[in-house]
Amino acid sequence: MNPIITLTTDFGLKDHYVGAMKGVILSINPAARIIDISHEIPPHDIFKGAFTLRNFYRYFPKETIHVAVVDPGVGSTRKAIALEVDGNIFVGPDNGVFTFIYRESKSYSIYEIKNPKYILSDISFTFQGRDIFAPVAAHLSLGVSVGDLGKRLRKPVELPIKESEVRRDEIIGEVIYIDSFGNLVTNIPAELVKSGSRIYIGKRIIKGLSKSYADVIKGKLLAIVGSSGFLEISVNRGRACDVIKVNDELRVKIKG
Amino acid sequence: MNPIITLTTDFGLKDHYVGAMKGVILSINPAARIIDISHEIPPHDIFKGAFTLRNFYRYFPKETIHVAVVDPGVGSTRKAIALEVDGNIFVGPDNGVFTFIYRESKSYSIYEIKNPKYILSDISFTFQGRDIFAPVAAHLSLGVSVGDLGKRLRKPVELPIKESEVRRDEIIGEVIYIDSFGNLVTNIPAELVKSGSRIYIGKRIIKGLSKSYADVIKGKLLAIVGSSGFLEISVNRGRACDVIKVNDELRVKIKG
Amino acid sequence: MNPIITLTTDFGLKDHYVGAMKGVILSINPAARIIDISHEIPPHDIFKGAFTLRNFYRYFPKETIHVAVVDPGVGSTRKAIALEVDGNIFVGPDNGVFTFIYRESKSYSIYEIKNPKYILSDISFTFQGRDIFAPVAAHLSLGVSVGDLGKRLRKPVELPIKESEVRRDEIIGEVIYIDSFGNLVTNIPAELVKSGSRIYIGKRIIKGLSKSYADVIKGKLLAIVGSSGFLEISVNRGRACDVIKVNDELRVKIKG
Repeated sequence: MNPIITLTTDFGLKDHYVGAMKGVILSINPAARIIDISHEIPPHDIFKGAFTLRNFYRYFPKETIHVAVVDPGVGSTRKAIALEVDGNIFVGPDNGVFTFIYRESKSYSIYEIKNPKYILSDISFTFQGRDIFAPVAAHLSLGVSVGDLGKRLRKPVELPIKESEVRRDEIIGEVIYIDSFGNLVTNIPAELVKSGSRIYIGKRIIKGLSKSYADVIKGKLLAIVGSSGFLEISVNRGRACDVIKVNDELRVKIKG
Repeated sequence: MNPIITLTTDFGLKDHYVGAMKGVILSINPAARIIDISHEIPPHDIFKGAFTLRNFYRYFPKETIHVAVVDPGVGSTRKAIALEVDGNIFVGPDNGVFTFIYRESKSYSIYEIKNPKYILSDISFTFQGRDIFAPVAAHLSLGVSVGDLGKRLRKPVELPIKESEVRRDEIIGEVIYIDSFGNLVTNIPAELVKSGSRIYIGKRIIKGLSKSYADVIKGKLLAIVGSSGFLEISVNRGRACDVIKVNDELRVKIKG
Repeated sequence: MNPIITLTTDFGLKDHYVGAMKGVILSINPAARIIDISHEIPPHDIFKGAFTLRNFYRYFPKETIHVAVVDPGVGSTRKAIALEVDGNIFVGPDNGVFTFIYRESKSYSIYEIKNPKYILSDISFTFQGRDIFAPVAAHLSLGVSVGDLGKRLRKPVELPIKESEVRRDEIIGEVIYIDSFGNLVTNIPAELVKSGSRIYIGKRIIKGLSKSYADVIKGKLLAIVGSSGFLEISVNRGRACDVIKVNDELRVKIKG
């Protein structure tokens, strides 16, 4: 089967950036299959790129090559890396965009991209998606191994991820992500919340978990097990982010 | 030829939702070819999803599998369905998103998706695009037949579609869709409008049909046969939706 | 290898337009591989389409077919064309969208699309992306040659491109494009600017070229060699377009 390369970037779709990356990939490996994940990661928002990556990569077949370019430090001393985790391959900047991969995997091996054989000869200081990450992904899709790219990297950059905290019968968490429907994704693992739990967020109290958005009337706030495995706060057919502030305090009384 | 699966959703391109669906499809059928139609259907706007579907599906080869996920009732009692119409296959929620397919086809067979063999084992209540519709589409692309998915469904949910009304020498219609250029698509079949017709919309009168936008000077209102087969109201190099209100009364005097 | 067709349009992703084009292509050549470049060219902005095309096409393998539809004159007397340049093939309206291709290539041959064999039989006056450009691209991908489409066209429409001007020790230029990060792309070829140069833009003076955005502190203005080969004005982790006006005068004192 022809190899799959996924693309997750903050390049937007108005410019030529994504197109140039696709051209480079197909020039090196015309058989590669390019799958767009998102080019609408908010500019320079490494955390959102990292969280998106966490939430889709495990659904792809092993040996898929995932390219993630959210890269405010492009051209600086930040390293370019490729890594292998349980048969999945990732390519991108060493700026924390792979943080969740490191945290949720038992073992991984990371290599700094240095080998000039696998990158373009004239490297731009502003667009390494085209000049480094795209050609490396294409070469990996041709069978080059991550170990051929350069030296092993021991300590990659990681984002500080705020985890929720369990204190006696209470969980203290926060909203870490707002999706495009306005749902608030928290950092509270959904399995900790019970049907009898009470969720306190800002000045609102939500009693228990809903099984679907339609469990409450239109416009009403609810808590639900989100598809990423975290507790989410939503409004049936509305936008929870218009009702709740991201910085509102979030506590769950486990036994209500 | 490798099977084609198209995706039409309201998921937007900022989150991981589309990526996760693509991963699920490719994990089940690595040979599937995924074609993005739109992920920018306005959130929860089933009518816009239905109208988009109507306007592109007939251009695809037979046996294409069209997945449509605009699904405000996800996780509720709304059914998940797959249908076959003249060799075209559709997968999505039973909420009216296929209304035009039912209305414009002579015969179709609809099946409720129930067979656990063809869906993921752990179904989320908020993201059935990933857990039901993507895997079903992938299995259909491997040769599973829609009849294997579950029982036949006799009465699918249909949206109320307002049709235009011919009264003597007059047609009463309305604007049903605004495209991203600001063109107003009406529900008046274009073949009913003659070159000598007069179109009354709000306080404006348009005389006859233009053959192209450039038939009138820049900024001027015109009526034209739209590419979906309906009468459209446009502004040459401008946005008709800034001039005409969607709720403005629309009448066509057929013989002017 | 299956032929590649790229799509660059101003159709946006909310409507069925892109989907219908893809369906037409795959119905004619089911083996075609469709690569989305951008559907977010600002509506009717031929220059932005032309500049985007210039910046990505050279990265694709030869024989790729590039379809560009930014077409405010659709349905008017503007011609539909296909051209071949150094083994690259382009399809679109004759409205200047290929201006940079003409200017930066030594030789090219352009043909007017007239042969009814290669277009749909019922041509809409508002959506020739679907009815002319998509089917022509699909037929070209099956081996039809551009010369089979119609007569040779001697003088294609070109956009007036403002080039920068070198006067003694000074270059007078302007901002020609703002990308989605807010970077200002100028029309000054980057190789003319030296590390000791001074860039005067509006009321600001930038001394010399930065090698990366991170060369200056966060929020500070800088000049850099852009990835398209032109001088760019940027703000480290910010948006230069919020600081500098597009119409601000731009001069570079070459020797500072």
